[in-house]
Amino acid sequence: MKKIAVFTSGGDAPGMNACVRAVVRTALYHGIEVVGIRRGYRGMIDGDFVPMTSYSVSNIIGQGGTILKSARCDEFRDIKWRKVAYDNCVKEGIEGLVAIGGNGTFTGAELLMENFGIPTIGCPGTIDNDLYGTDYTIGFDTAVNTALDAIDKIRDTASSHDRVFFVEVMGRDAGFIAMQCGIGGGAEKILVPENPDSIDDVIATLKSGGENEKPSHIVVVAEGEEIGNAHFIAQKAKEALPNLDIRVSNLGHIQRGGSPSAIDRIIASRMGIAAVEGLLEGKNNVMSGIIDDKIVYTSFNDAINKKKALDVDLIKMVKILNS
Amino acid sequence: MKKIAVFTSGGDAPGMNACVRAVVRTALYHGIEVVGIRRGYRGMIDGDFVPMTSYSVSNIIGQGGTILKSARCDEFRDIKWRKVAYDNCVKEGIEGLVAIGGNGTFTGAELLMENFGIPTIGCPGTIDNDLYGTDYTIGFDTAVNTALDAIDKIRDTASSHDRVFFVEVMGRDAGFIAMQCGIGGGAEKILVPENPDSIDDVIATLKSGGENEKPSHIVVVAEGEEIGNAHFIAQKAKEALPNLDIRVSNLGHIQRGGSPSAIDRIIASRMGIAAVEGLLEGKNNVMSGIIDDKIVYTSFNDAINKKKALDVDLIKMVKILNS
Amino acid sequence: MKKIAVFTSGGDAPGMNACVRAVVRTALYHGIEVVGIRRGYRGMIDGDFVPMTSYSVSNIIGQGGTILKSARCDEFRDIKWRKVAYDNCVKEGIEGLVAIGGNGTFTGAELLMENFGIPTIGCPGTIDNDLYGTDYTIGFDTAVNTALDAIDKIRDTASSHDRVFFVEVMGRDAGFIAMQCGIGGGAEKILVPENPDSIDDVIATLKSGGENEKPSHIVVVAEGEEIGNAHFIAQKAKEALPNLDIRVSNLGHIQRGGSPSAIDRIIASRMGIAAVEGLLEGKNNVMSGIIDDKIVYTSFNDAINKKKALDVDLIKMVKILNS
Amino acid sequence: MKKIAVFTSGGDAPGMNACVRAVVRTALYHGIEVVGIRRGYRGMIDGDFVPMTSYSVSNIIGQGGTILKSARCDEFRDIKWRKVAYDNCVKEGIEGLVAIGGNGTFTGAELLMENFGIPTIGCPGTIDNDLYGTDYTIGFDTAVNTALDAIDKIRDTASSHDRVFFVEVMGRDAGFIAMQCGIGGGAEKILVPENPDSIDDVIATLKSGGENEKPSHIVVVAEGEEIGNAHFIAQKAKEALPNLDIRVSNLGHIQRGGSPSAIDRIIASRMGIAAVEGLLEGKNNVMSGIIDDKIVYTSFNDAINKKKALDVDLIKMVKILNS
Repeated sequence: MKKIAVFTSGGDAPGMNACVRAVVRTALYHGIEVVGIRRGYRGMIDGDFVPMTSYSVSNIIGQGGTILKSARCDEFRDIKWRKVAYDNCVKEGIEGLVAIGGNGTFTGAELLMENFGIPTIGCPGTIDNDLYGTDYTIGFDTAVNTALDAIDKIRDTASSHDRVFFVEVMGRDAGFIAMQCGIGGGAEKILVPENPDSIDDVIATLKSGGENEKPSHIVVVAEGEEIGNAHFIAQKAKEALPNLDIRVSNLGHIQRGGSPSAIDRIIASRMGIAAVEGLLEGKNNVMSGIIDDKIVYTSFNDAINKKKALDVDLIKMVKILNS
Repeated sequence: MKKIAVFTSGGDAPGMNACVRAVVRTALYHGIEVVGIRRGYRGMIDGDFVPMTSYSVSNIIGQGGTILKSARCDEFRDIKWRKVAYDNCVKEGIEGLVAIGGNGTFTGAELLMENFGIPTIGCPGTIDNDLYGTDYTIGFDTAVNTALDAIDKIRDTASSHDRVFFVEVMGRDAGFIAMQCGIGGGAEKILVPENPDSIDDVIATLKSGGENEKPSHIVVVAEGEEIGNAHFIAQKAKEALPNLDIRVSNLGHIQRGGSPSAIDRIIASRMGIAAVEGLLEGKNNVMSGIIDDKIVYTSFNDAINKKKALDVDLIKMVKILNS
Repeated sequence: MKKIAVFTSGGDAPGMNACVRAVVRTALYHGIEVVGIRRGYRGMIDGDFVPMTSYSVSNIIGQGGTILKSARCDEFRDIKWRKVAYDNCVKEGIEGLVAIGGNGTFTGAELLMENFGIPTIGCPGTIDNDLYGTDYTIGFDTAVNTALDAIDKIRDTASSHDRVFFVEVMGRDAGFIAMQCGIGGGAEKILVPENPDSIDDVIATLKSGGENEKPSHIVVVAEGEEIGNAHFIAQKAKEALPNLDIRVSNLGHIQRGGSPSAIDRIIASRMGIAAVEGLLEGKNNVMSGIIDDKIVYTSFNDAINKKKALDVDLIKMVKILNS
Repeated sequence: MKKIAVFTSGGDAPGMNACVRAVVRTALYHGIEVVGIRRGYRGMIDGDFVPMTSYSVSNIIGQGGTILKSARCDEFRDIKWRKVAYDNCVKEGIEGLVAIGGNGTFTGAELLMENFGIPTIGCPGTIDNDLYGTDYTIGFDTAVNTALDAIDKIRDTASSHDRVFFVEVMGRDAGFIAMQCGIGGGAEKILVPENPDSIDDVIATLKSGGENEKPSHIVVVAEGEEIGNAHFIAQKAKEALPNLDIRVSNLGHIQRGGSPSAIDRIIASRMGIAAVEGLLEGKNNVMSGIIDDKIVYTSFNDAINKKKALDVDLIKMVKILNS
């Protein structure tokens, strides 16, 4: 293998740059050329390639976002456009790909392999931590700490005013972010899609707390929660408990940005190195993840289709920690 | 004067604790007893007084929120309840008050003086910076930096995806927070109530930017903006510019919390000292503010009724800085 | 078991308070009384016990330091004083202990058990991460992120002036902090006690870097590094490479403080719960750690005497990532 | 004026990039070309010029350090080398300069004007805040907040162990940083060059505190303090008060780095705009500062030679706030 390409795709996540840096430097270390593809599959179709040097990734390990940019690309579902993308890769001399992203990213890579035989290794880049085959995804720890910092701030004002706050966090249909920042933030209740809860449960918790001396409460709601989003649940709670001063805060896109945490920089670096080394060893159609602190390659098929379980025992913790 | 009381009232702001600490320590330094009143006027009516010692304010200078808590108290508008509050103060031996808060707080103190003659000095505690008689209010600098940090994070993801973000910040009907964090965050446009802007202006700015190579944009919207809130304006922009990827983030209550910045701790300390020393010098019905780095006492009447001007020349800066 | 005690001992670490909170709330959840012992073994000898309620640990999950304080206590090595401590515990009705700390803390607990039969379970609280029987110790992740943040700041000025910085970080005789913040901070070289390096190696690395266009460099030095501390090594490097602008920064005690990270709050909570539940199940003389994300109890003997290996393969990463 | 140059010189300071951005964008706004000179006077001698576009300063407003780099340049004291520098400027078509830096920077500019008549306007870029003619220098507020954050962390561990910490902060021979972060950090004593203090004073303060229940103490020492540095003073205190557990932390170069605070970004932007507009109005040999929130131009001569007074009344505050 003489030349590879690296790109980021899907929602951006802190640590993607650290991963790009690791891919570039590892390739150069092994004497392989690297190009970056801007805006993921969009750039592959447009032929938006940039040569990467050691210098071009210098001082990016701590930068949020992705210097290679990311974009949606619906056209890539059409084999006609995948052909265009593939032809651009061939023209550029690209013999292997490192794809940093999530489910959609890996699905695209699988199709590209199936259709045209270009090998790809993926690195799990998403704040949601919802990929099977790795304990942590790149960006998750940073997003959790960003949300936690926000919850700490909200608790300041909640305590000062004896208020109840429903805080909505990201995570698509997974409760990983909600669970971590909820436990870390001392939330009185954490609502995640993986654990059936009813509005009555929520109201009962707030009610029992409200009988003590006017307490503050934090309820963390995962965005994919089935019984509704934070505004909806808060509205129901207000109706049932008119004496409580109930507010809502949707943390939103701040959770995607910021300088990556130590863990995100380190796992991004390790996964990036493993991706390039995997390509050199002939691996293909797999994601480089970390399980029990060891690099593990998981097929894209499993990474996409198998369900990563949230440890709902953690919910028991919440009950104990609020006794 | 042998005994005074201190309380916080209205929306909480980072630095209120630093101010409480300064009031308590200054009183003790001058040989005066101090009690804290919990939950502002609510606690004055309820007789919720706590004796304050040097130790009870130790290590709070860096804490967000207010250890004395805050609350709304509609009853205080009724002289009957003010009488109850006053009687409680007399029973406790309180001869003067330090009120940390904003407009509503000072209005209450004025009435208390008018009705019963108990002297109050105010300290401007509000993140909004909308009080006449002081360059900065306690909490403003922290809120601006919190909002700025959020905007920096949002820019990471905006840049990665070439998106436009409408970011709504606090400030009630004043644009101080929006202006500071907008300039500091490199916003392409800042919408404040003090400066008439139309949706067409916003669209024109985004359009001219959008014609360059798919740029990201940040538009900061003050919550009191007359043409509508961030969601409303974003909706209009989406209709007019369907090719742009437009998102909204409402920063919400995180702006009220967090450990106060250096400036907020220092001005809170200075204003707290000045409030107690003002009481000792016989001052009354005034707010201790800082203008041009000097302590200035302004009558509650002026502080409440005069309009503090936002320097709209700063808006010209935005235009220059985005050229 | 009707009553237990909890204490913190040895060097303080961020997350100790989260652990104290978990111990207290778990005990209360199981209907057990809890007292806190102030200043570890010192307080046990002095009988400095404070009853703990759910309220007394409220809002401490995010606080640095330890509300129970910590202290050295050389007297505890003498059985005479351990007898005094034990008698105080008996008088207080304490039937079990949770000890949050490191090696020295667990050694004391072992002796107490051996002499008087009072059961203890330990929680690994130290920023150094040098305890066998757990992947992470409480405080480690926070200390790493604090050091990383400092390195990021130092890199700003190093880059601006083309300087080389030797940054000394904590870790006693272990290189865990150095390795994590070195990789996360993009350090060009990381010196840890576990990996023999010579001053010549350091000079060779700096020399090869210095031949490129006046670069900046970060060299992270663990405090226990055998070839000498950061000042000593920097001095040698200056002598060998007089053209480089070499500076030293010893990060010092900032690494012990600050609000704990999400991971530290969560592992502290999990370990604290496990400690109390372990006591209830009759466990004794063991530390509750987390290995591969599962609670594991390790005998104090092993935790103290077995050597936790630093993955020196990570050092290879440094070489690759700087190519 | 058709073309100007901008450079940074002397010690780097957070916000220098925000100032560079403002200079570049303001020049372009007025139809003037801009080049950046890398490494200050060093680059002027070497002819190290880079053309600046609006894009080349995009997303740097929040970056620490200086993208134009900085360096010492002793040769510039020699008119022979200043001639070389001047000739390079002429060759490049540069008709005016914006110099971001401190005393040394402005001295160089004065000489360049005197010898060859090239006009310069300065922007005060130094964390030390020791320049006459401006209330704040660029980088000061960020450095204070960085030092304050470190002091908060140190207090966590000081409180946990009842320790006394001597914390040394930057500021050369001025006590501005020490004073601000000392008051903000609740320091029990602040030693600044502007206020004569003796070691006996320090010992007396620690002694009176030490008689209360084993308290923690923070003493902030400005690096230029005449009675000696933090290590020296701490050593004397240890000898006099052997029962206290006294430690030293020298915060060092972290104070120079990091993303600039809101205030630093805003004043840097305002001063940068004012520098370019000043050049266009024919101003010369002056520094653009901000006094009482208004742009004021001060001659280099005054900025360099007049002494900016530290408000030593603030020291009285420290005494009151620790009562």
